[in-house]
Amino acid sequence: MSSTAAKAADHGPGASHRPGRDHGAPGGHGSGGSGGSGRGTRDRLWSVADHLDDILGKIRPLEPIELRLLEAQGCVLVEDVTVPVALPPFDNSSMDGYAVRTADVAGASGKSPVTLTVIGDVAAGSGELPEVGPGEAARIMTGAPLPPGAEAVVPVEWTDGGTGRGPATGMRAHSAAPEGATGEVRVHRPAAARQHVRARGSDVTAGELALRAGTVLGPPQIGLLAAIGRATVAVRPRPRVVVMSTGSELVQPGEPLAPGRIHDSNSFQLTAAARDAGAIAYRAGAVADDAATFRSAVEDQLIRADAIVTSGGVSVGAYDVVKEALGGDVEFRRVAMQPGKPQGFGRIGPDRVPLLALPGNPVSSYVSFELFVRPVIRTLMGLPDVHRTTRRAVCAEAVGSSPEGRRQFLRGRYEPAGPGEPGTVTPVGGAGSHLVGALARANALIVVDEATTEVAAGTEVDVVLLT
Amino acid sequence: MSSTAAKAADHGPGASHRPGRDHGAPGGHGSGGSGGSGRGTRDRLWSVADHLDDILGKIRPLEPIELRLLEAQGCVLVEDVTVPVALPPFDNSSMDGYAVRTADVAGASGKSPVTLTVIGDVAAGSGELPEVGPGEAARIMTGAPLPPGAEAVVPVEWTDGGTGRGPATGMRAHSAAPEGATGEVRVHRPAAARQHVRARGSDVTAGELALRAGTVLGPPQIGLLAAIGRATVAVRPRPRVVVMSTGSELVQPGEPLAPGRIHDSNSFQLTAAARDAGAIAYRAGAVADDAATFRSAVEDQLIRADAIVTSGGVSVGAYDVVKEALGGDVEFRRVAMQPGKPQGFGRIGPDRVPLLALPGNPVSSYVSFELFVRPVIRTLMGLPDVHRTTRRAVCAEAVGSSPEGRRQFLRGRYEPAGPGEPGTVTPVGGAGSHLVGALARANALIVVDEATTEVAAGTEVDVVLLT
Repeated sequence: MSSTAAKAADHGPGASHRPGRDHGAPGGHGSGGSGGSGRGTRDRLWSVADHLDDILGKIRPLEPIELRLLEAQGCVLVEDVTVPVALPPFDNSSMDGYAVRTADVAGASGKSPVTLTVIGDVAAGSGELPEVGPGEAARIMTGAPLPPGAEAVVPVEWTDGGTGRGPATGMRAHSAAPEGATGEVRVHRPAAARQHVRARGSDVTAGELALRAGTVLGPPQIGLLAAIGRATVAVRPRPRVVVMSTGSELVQPGEPLAPGRIHDSNSFQLTAAARDAGAIAYRAGAVADDAATFRSAVEDQLIRADAIVTSGGVSVGAYDVVKEALGGDVEFRRVAMQPGKPQGFGRIGPDRVPLLALPGNPVSSYVSFELFVRPVIRTLMGLPDVHRTTRRAVCAEAVGSSPEGRRQFLRGRYEPAGPGEPGTVTPVGGAGSHLVGALARANALIVVDEATTEVAAGTEVDVVLLT
Repeated sequence: MSSTAAKAADHGPGASHRPGRDHGAPGGHGSGGSGGSGRGTRDRLWSVADHLDDILGKIRPLEPIELRLLEAQGCVLVEDVTVPVALPPFDNSSMDGYAVRTADVAGASGKSPVTLTVIGDVAAGSGELPEVGPGEAARIMTGAPLPPGAEAVVPVEWTDGGTGRGPATGMRAHSAAPEGATGEVRVHRPAAARQHVRARGSDVTAGELALRAGTVLGPPQIGLLAAIGRATVAVRPRPRVVVMSTGSELVQPGEPLAPGRIHDSNSFQLTAAARDAGAIAYRAGAVADDAATFRSAVEDQLIRADAIVTSGGVSVGAYDVVKEALGGDVEFRRVAMQPGKPQGFGRIGPDRVPLLALPGNPVSSYVSFELFVRPVIRTLMGLPDVHRTTRRAVCAEAVGSSPEGRRQFLRGRYEPAGPGEPGTVTPVGGAGSHLVGALARANALIVVDEATTEVAAGTEVDVVLLT
């Protein structure tokens, strides 16, 4: 299905890829200097591109479900929707005015108005319509069906509105002045045949394609679906993403810190980021560093998860419980990036739910989310664009040292420039993966590629826009 | 409060404006040719800019409330948040390794490693810390507090990991190999003082400004708030917007159409658009053309509404119930635009809830929403950018006729160009305000200003981007 193809951004932070493509297929760019160098899988240093390709190659869009229109907002349509009944379903007036026969008003002018007998009102929603005979007019409202016999509508402003005085500016409410539906009206201008009449089917015709499979449903598409009578529609649902952080040092925000403890921030940051990417995200909170407890907590979440994201416990320490608990199902890797070297990806449980195990440093986990989890969420949704936008920008300050062979993602403040010029980006904070203060001032990631170890001020770099 | 200032887009569809600014203040651009020409208020043809200015001049951002972090996502902070306790709260390790005294490892090399006695583990979250004496090391995990006596951390990869063999690639899990916390370790490289130690306060210091009032809370800002221990935060809430459509012709989608009836689409489209703008939107559905019923339906909604949006019933017909029911509280106007000439705005009920009465044609109501309601929602939220992005684009096809003295908003398909060039926009569908099929294919509004009656192919125009 065409809607399932994930398209890489022009300057994607990883490499171009498609779901289903084999791991390691040529990316064209982005293969790290140290990637896939023939060492064993366990010791292999994966490039960002290869790790992303490997993950997305194993992710399939979620199975479609039928949702009510407003629940389907932002989702991808999986059916070609055709129009069951023409729109408009009947000829109707585009103005508040009088439905007339064109011959009757052919000679009408301000100086010599034509007087017609008003035979009644045709309001929007009228089912029974009066027949308009010669010398007659029906008062008609916008959207009301053109009654039989009538050939055109003269706007009320072209008439005296039945008052016997000069040109009208509008009608009086029927409830206050029911006599407006009777009596006579003087018409000051002629009307051509079909003037101010919206023809049946002039918007869309029966059998026409209204929306193609793959369309993302925004307000106008939801409006069109409602207009053609659809109450529900088949779409790929938003993925339910469960977010868990790990670490015996973690304390819930709002609670006091004992010595050696810090507040859990990753589970909040990643839950917000998952929602931002389009998911229905559940924050399952922080789990202490005990492998059995963690494994059990993950298993408890499988029932409601289309994907699971964890943070922490994936490195080379003696208390890295994610690695310990999930080592059988999840492959833990070193990826040639900074921050974010240790990464885990696998599928767990009977439904083979994708699990992304991110490193625990707050900046590492956030950068990892943007590079790997966001594309997973958007691939699950079947969205056409799975990556953040990338731009070229002039780096306003020198970047001192970037590790060779690793792709560095520095936090930056991007400012777009005028037409024809690249924007500028200014690094904020340092490279430390614990610098959450600087991260909160950033709106972009500055990409320093594997071969580059320093960036002079004024050099053009790729930046990943975070908003 | 600085966060309450609404900033106009550079090429805003209306004019520049600020909440609180007097109606009719000079806009610099956008005053329609026919606006404010000295006729009575009732007959006045308002420019788009003046109508928008008048509305936004009467809208104040919502009163702040304290929300839990994940409920505050996307909202605007109204307090300057300072850091209560430094981050990190204590010196801690940036690596999995061994906490050492630098003098002990000063001469270490691969050929002549230094052997230290391992006195125990320091895991993240450890409260009680061993004291590292001369000749000793504590095994330490990323994020764990630097124990007293230790001056630096040597990564496990710079040691034998306690195995007595070559350089280690990691630690074995404590649960499987508890002996790793004891015995000896051979260190192969020296460490400088403070190496691999994140100093207390190196991220943010106590008393420092973490986030300024006016900040929009995205994932990194939520992460920072959690990290400094905040469980709740004072923000302007998302406005609750009630959407009602009116018309006796309206049938719920999914139900069959009797003669003269059409399916209600506006309430769906506008509810989706209100959510897209940031609101919590309630679709109150379609109300028949009876003034008392409609008035009562509106009053029923006041309890949960920060703003009310209606469609239909605002023109010059005899069954325009919105005008009839709300004429006392809401001012109905003619605005010099196409589509969307009839517009109503007022404040109703004891809380003076803003009510925007939009015209009923689906395209008219949608365009009106984008121009007037979206900025209202975003002003209520206190967001810095209340308007859609506007761009210059080359119009790929000629636009035949645009009414003089009215600002026309045609639907278009915008394609951005490469750097330095304006994008292109292609009109889709015609000018008819009933063409919902074309609207669903559009991603932009083409703005044809009041003085322009036709646009030659290849001319540059303003476009309002709808996504």
